[in-house]
Amino acid sequence: MAAVSSSLTQWAIQVRRHLHENPELSGQEYETAALVKTHLLQMGIELIDCTAPSVVGLLKGGDGSLTRTVALRADMDALPIMEEGDKPYISKKPGITHACGHDGHTAVLLTAAKQLSTIKQELPVNVLLLFQSSEEAFPSGAEQLIRDGVVDRADAIFGIHLWQGLPKGKIGLHHGAMMASADEFVITIEGKGGHGSMPHQTIDPIYIASHLIQALQSIVSRQVNPLQPAVISVGKVEAGTTYNILPSRAILNGTVRTMNQEVRDSIYGKMQRVSEGICAGFGARCTLEYSWGNPPLVNDKEMSAYAQAVVSETFGAETYTDVEPVMGGEDFASYLVIKPGAFLFVGMAGDKSAWPHHHPRFDINEDVLPDAIALMTNLIRMFP
Amino acid sequence: MAAVSSSLTQWAIQVRRHLHENPELSGQEYETAALVKTHLLQMGIELIDCTAPSVVGLLKGGDGSLTRTVALRADMDALPIMEEGDKPYISKKPGITHACGHDGHTAVLLTAAKQLSTIKQELPVNVLLLFQSSEEAFPSGAEQLIRDGVVDRADAIFGIHLWQGLPKGKIGLHHGAMMASADEFVITIEGKGGHGSMPHQTIDPIYIASHLIQALQSIVSRQVNPLQPAVISVGKVEAGTTYNILPSRAILNGTVRTMNQEVRDSIYGKMQRVSEGICAGFGARCTLEYSWGNPPLVNDKEMSAYAQAVVSETFGAETYTDVEPVMGGEDFASYLVIKPGAFLFVGMAGDKSAWPHHHPRFDINEDVLPDAIALMTNLIRMFP
Amino acid sequence: MAAVSSSLTQWAIQVRRHLHENPELSGQEYETAALVKTHLLQMGIELIDCTAPSVVGLLKGGDGSLTRTVALRADMDALPIMEEGDKPYISKKPGITHACGHDGHTAVLLTAAKQLSTIKQELPVNVLLLFQSSEEAFPSGAEQLIRDGVVDRADAIFGIHLWQGLPKGKIGLHHGAMMASADEFVITIEGKGGHGSMPHQTIDPIYIASHLIQALQSIVSRQVNPLQPAVISVGKVEAGTTYNILPSRAILNGTVRTMNQEVRDSIYGKMQRVSEGICAGFGARCTLEYSWGNPPLVNDKEMSAYAQAVVSETFGAETYTDVEPVMGGEDFASYLVIKPGAFLFVGMAGDKSAWPHHHPRFDINEDVLPDAIALMTNLIRMFP
Amino acid sequence: MAAVSSSLTQWAIQVRRHLHENPELSGQEYETAALVKTHLLQMGIELIDCTAPSVVGLLKGGDGSLTRTVALRADMDALPIMEEGDKPYISKKPGITHACGHDGHTAVLLTAAKQLSTIKQELPVNVLLLFQSSEEAFPSGAEQLIRDGVVDRADAIFGIHLWQGLPKGKIGLHHGAMMASADEFVITIEGKGGHGSMPHQTIDPIYIASHLIQALQSIVSRQVNPLQPAVISVGKVEAGTTYNILPSRAILNGTVRTMNQEVRDSIYGKMQRVSEGICAGFGARCTLEYSWGNPPLVNDKEMSAYAQAVVSETFGAETYTDVEPVMGGEDFASYLVIKPGAFLFVGMAGDKSAWPHHHPRFDINEDVLPDAIALMTNLIRMFP
Repeated sequence: MAAVSSSLTQWAIQVRRHLHENPELSGQEYETAALVKTHLLQMGIELIDCTAPSVVGLLKGGDGSLTRTVALRADMDALPIMEEGDKPYISKKPGITHACGHDGHTAVLLTAAKQLSTIKQELPVNVLLLFQSSEEAFPSGAEQLIRDGVVDRADAIFGIHLWQGLPKGKIGLHHGAMMASADEFVITIEGKGGHGSMPHQTIDPIYIASHLIQALQSIVSRQVNPLQPAVISVGKVEAGTTYNILPSRAILNGTVRTMNQEVRDSIYGKMQRVSEGICAGFGARCTLEYSWGNPPLVNDKEMSAYAQAVVSETFGAETYTDVEPVMGGEDFASYLVIKPGAFLFVGMAGDKSAWPHHHPRFDINEDVLPDAIALMTNLIRMFP
Repeated sequence: MAAVSSSLTQWAIQVRRHLHENPELSGQEYETAALVKTHLLQMGIELIDCTAPSVVGLLKGGDGSLTRTVALRADMDALPIMEEGDKPYISKKPGITHACGHDGHTAVLLTAAKQLSTIKQELPVNVLLLFQSSEEAFPSGAEQLIRDGVVDRADAIFGIHLWQGLPKGKIGLHHGAMMASADEFVITIEGKGGHGSMPHQTIDPIYIASHLIQALQSIVSRQVNPLQPAVISVGKVEAGTTYNILPSRAILNGTVRTMNQEVRDSIYGKMQRVSEGICAGFGARCTLEYSWGNPPLVNDKEMSAYAQAVVSETFGAETYTDVEPVMGGEDFASYLVIKPGAFLFVGMAGDKSAWPHHHPRFDINEDVLPDAIALMTNLIRMFP
Repeated sequence: MAAVSSSLTQWAIQVRRHLHENPELSGQEYETAALVKTHLLQMGIELIDCTAPSVVGLLKGGDGSLTRTVALRADMDALPIMEEGDKPYISKKPGITHACGHDGHTAVLLTAAKQLSTIKQELPVNVLLLFQSSEEAFPSGAEQLIRDGVVDRADAIFGIHLWQGLPKGKIGLHHGAMMASADEFVITIEGKGGHGSMPHQTIDPIYIASHLIQALQSIVSRQVNPLQPAVISVGKVEAGTTYNILPSRAILNGTVRTMNQEVRDSIYGKMQRVSEGICAGFGARCTLEYSWGNPPLVNDKEMSAYAQAVVSETFGAETYTDVEPVMGGEDFASYLVIKPGAFLFVGMAGDKSAWPHHHPRFDINEDVLPDAIALMTNLIRMFP
Repeated sequence: MAAVSSSLTQWAIQVRRHLHENPELSGQEYETAALVKTHLLQMGIELIDCTAPSVVGLLKGGDGSLTRTVALRADMDALPIMEEGDKPYISKKPGITHACGHDGHTAVLLTAAKQLSTIKQELPVNVLLLFQSSEEAFPSGAEQLIRDGVVDRADAIFGIHLWQGLPKGKIGLHHGAMMASADEFVITIEGKGGHGSMPHQTIDPIYIASHLIQALQSIVSRQVNPLQPAVISVGKVEAGTTYNILPSRAILNGTVRTMNQEVRDSIYGKMQRVSEGICAGFGARCTLEYSWGNPPLVNDKEMSAYAQAVVSETFGAETYTDVEPVMGGEDFASYLVIKPGAFLFVGMAGDKSAWPHHHPRFDINEDVLPDAIALMTNLIRMFP
């Protein structure tokens, strides 16, 4: 049952284009949520309490007495980017657009729900439908749903991303760590300002920053297992106002990426140690503010194998791809910390889909929507 | 003849307070210039053509046929600083104030001119009176007067600075290099931007900047004669806009200070070499923009000895002080590149004068004005 | 047919202990080779010409007209390490010992050959038996056999390592890159010596080295895909003879490790670029001598799957382990550059085998020899 | 009385050549001492107890009841250098030579003593003649004589150095700081060794050393008054034994030079701080061993003026030179910490004296010996 009817596909496209024209930023997806709720209620799906604007539906499978529940998740938020190009369904809200494909994710899950609701007696499990807010923000919508207790109802969880990094026609995942943890840090070096001609009367935070920027790199290259991917990037330096005055402080703002929670934890500790050591060495003080973002996204071993099997059986073994992990982050990772599950990439790269995620001209390739819907549906239908 | 009459002193104070209440920024000293011109003409002093708003007067000494001419110089500009405190003569122009004492310098030279004009027949030389604009700016007023050809008329030149770094009652100079060259540089590192999670797809200018900041210091500590003072300070780093995006460029803005022209020249060359080498090593390009400011201020050996003698004879040998050089710059240095001369500090540190130069509460100690006037006068009267 | 007879196991242990007592260094394994040849000839196995002391045998399978050939390889060299401990079969050659288990590898392959020779009519392929010299040296024995043309005879190749990093009872490999390339580099920084009190008269190679050591790390942390393991380590710095004399040169000696040939090539280029750039920036010259060691060991996709199947069928699926790659090198990698094949680890960690490879007290666990022999045998017998 | 008789000059040359042929290393100048004693006794000069092999003579001036005493000092030790060239008076001791001119110093002082002894009744002061051992070693001979209490007898002290940095015919000094403090340091970074392929299992002392080498330079360029000369040089790095093993420790061995005791003290403290901070930042431990060598040589203001006057009156004002300070050290500095005095350079650069101090072909220019003797003599005769 890989096939999705033509009319259902048309419906999915219509929903998706409506969402694309009416994008909403993280935490503000109220109109999207209202649309989702209306449709879920029309499908006869029960709504579960959760923090708005996320929407959670529960579709009882079998004879209504099934005890196992599998969650499917879609994210709903758009980005603060000015859309470019001339799509007929271009964003009506200047400065906001669905540049990451979440409009597609929502439409896919809604359509899969529609399909599943028509065959609910045949389903081996109940289906928890997570239409989640705020994937792009911190704290994330995933964490909020977890705090809401909603996710406790699920025995397993699956999600997808329409993905430009994979060719159209391919669907896959990576067993184990597939996406990175993504944290932010701010290191403030507090020295002592003064005139540039008399550095000895100052504690020069810019010079100290230059040591620290290098030392941070050594955490990656010397202190982390080389088999464990890790990145520390300083994206922004703020220091000083003019050429001949040494400022009293320098601020380094950057990101840490890892594929492993232990590595992530250890990097935080090493950053603290090296910041303090180097600043102390030069007589400065420093503070490290560390904002824990999404954890690494680690697919469960058994659920990965199951998802691989679903892809192979639904679309043929040649469709399944062991995708290369990516250093980007994804809040679906939080679900996988507490529940077994898997996250899949649905390839859409090709002529129709030429721009990368987060580009002002990004668009999904609607041709892959039927397969995405079928995938979501079968992840439930074939659940062992 | 160290004495300056009480009435002349009162006149100097009155002039100085008027200037303090009516400060003008570099290059805009037109009202100050008008006041100076009026007084010079009243003293019967001839005005010499030069680029406004600088004013140059020529007082012919002796019987009017003397061939030698000695220049005295005062600077006239104020600073873009909001004055604080409650002086009765506080600046009437918000955001502009005489925070470096140039009001005092102008008043002292004007008063010395007045005194000299009354005894012009006794003078051993003609006196060229330089009331100079734009000491605080680049290109400097000194360079403009030199380009005007006015300074060619002088056989020697003297100037003073009322100085917080020397106690009231002390007057002095340093034989040889006394103040620093003060240049500005901007190094732009052109890398390649990208996402912070994929540094290998970028050429990270922030990381490269951290190498360069350290390498610049090694010019001072490894490549310059340790007996030659030198400073390279990066006062400002501009790089990046947010934590997870690596920018394509980083900009280092700073100052170079030396006490010797050869050292200064060599530092420029070494900065070029190390910037290019390091950027090339990481695949980046770089540009070094170097703005040559004032040269090092180097007192002429004979004129220093003469000025020392004038101080000793006028005020007593205990007044004369071999002052420690300072790393600050001064455009009087440009005169000393082409003419023999000396620059003196007139000490005014003590209870009445508590704030450093360029501080919003800075004020000169008017008690030292008579000595400053006497010094200027005697530098002419005693000229051998 | 996982079982290896007790008498055959005893024979393997006896051979192995004899080899352990009589270790030979890389390139000097002549007695070992003589022993191997004697046994092969006794088994009726044809010897193939190759560069001594390597020994190559060819066992024709089936009816003697088979066209496909599968190679099995064992390495034979010992290490220049003084053995410690009190094994009854301790090395008779002071300063040389089989501290990496190659004695075991040779005994296993010889015993597998013995077993295979008794059932040669049943074999689906011919068997090329590579008893290889110089795994621990450069250029390696593997490269020599390749140059000899011997390896051209094989359609596939397999090898094993008795492995302390895996528990006894486990056998496995990693699909794809499993072991690292291992290169050596020597960077010589040519500055200009002089007295430590006058650094400006020198070009200080120690200071330049400090920049370069840090810059090399940035190749790993900034310039290589974070998903690609890479290590650059400087293991030795040679610079200077006494505290107050700056030397004219500094030498950095280190190793580069990667899991991917493209990464390896790119690191070499980046090392050249950064060495030249930084040295030029400080006015020094530099040379990079780069000794290409073993390439990354990358198991063939199909052959890995086959080997996994052989392990699972022979010993049970629970025995098979997806081993974590290691940053160590292995010359078997060279075979895999030109032929499909796979390299397996036979776990032996546990009470009996407590010391790491290359330790003076290292010993293999002879209990795992039967499984290793069975594995080698079945890799031939089950070849599809 | 600048003239020194021809016979006295011949005697000085003869003594000097004898010493040159028979050089003795620091602390071993026993034959030199014996020769000095013999001559002093022949001159009727009283010997004062001190630690051998230094020799101290006391020549009582005037009527024998003078209370003031002026010390003159010569150093006696040679260097562990193999002399090159074909002087007729070449060193008879292979590997030892007077490559710094101390043979000349000893001969000059001995000859001056001879001359002074003939006119002792005319002398305004008693003369303390210090023939000092171990100028080139630590602890220095100067410190030993001070500990002996011998120097307490002097009211002032003078010394000379025959100097290649000044042309023949010039004699001079620098008022104030003229020679540098010269200390040695050893910084040991204690990390944790391991294999070069697994840096995360180590604490890499070589990488840490690279940070520290740079940080030490920033003490000079950022933390010391730019008007105060200072040098920190790492002359030797010891780390590691082979390319692929990371050592557990790295040792930095270097020298610190300053012209000012406060700067020197502060540098020691800053080195401690930065070593500890950086090592702590990377999880390593470190020790700083600091060997205090000679202090900065700072000529006394009044004694400098006196010595300048002696030079001018003895040889003419054009002979006197304000010499540029040098970053080399000299143990005469220790005398000047406790007694007023001055150290003078007697120029000898020119055709005859072409090689720098400490060069295997170094030789003094014997033509300057008469002036050196006259200078020593007159420093006593003219003492006010």
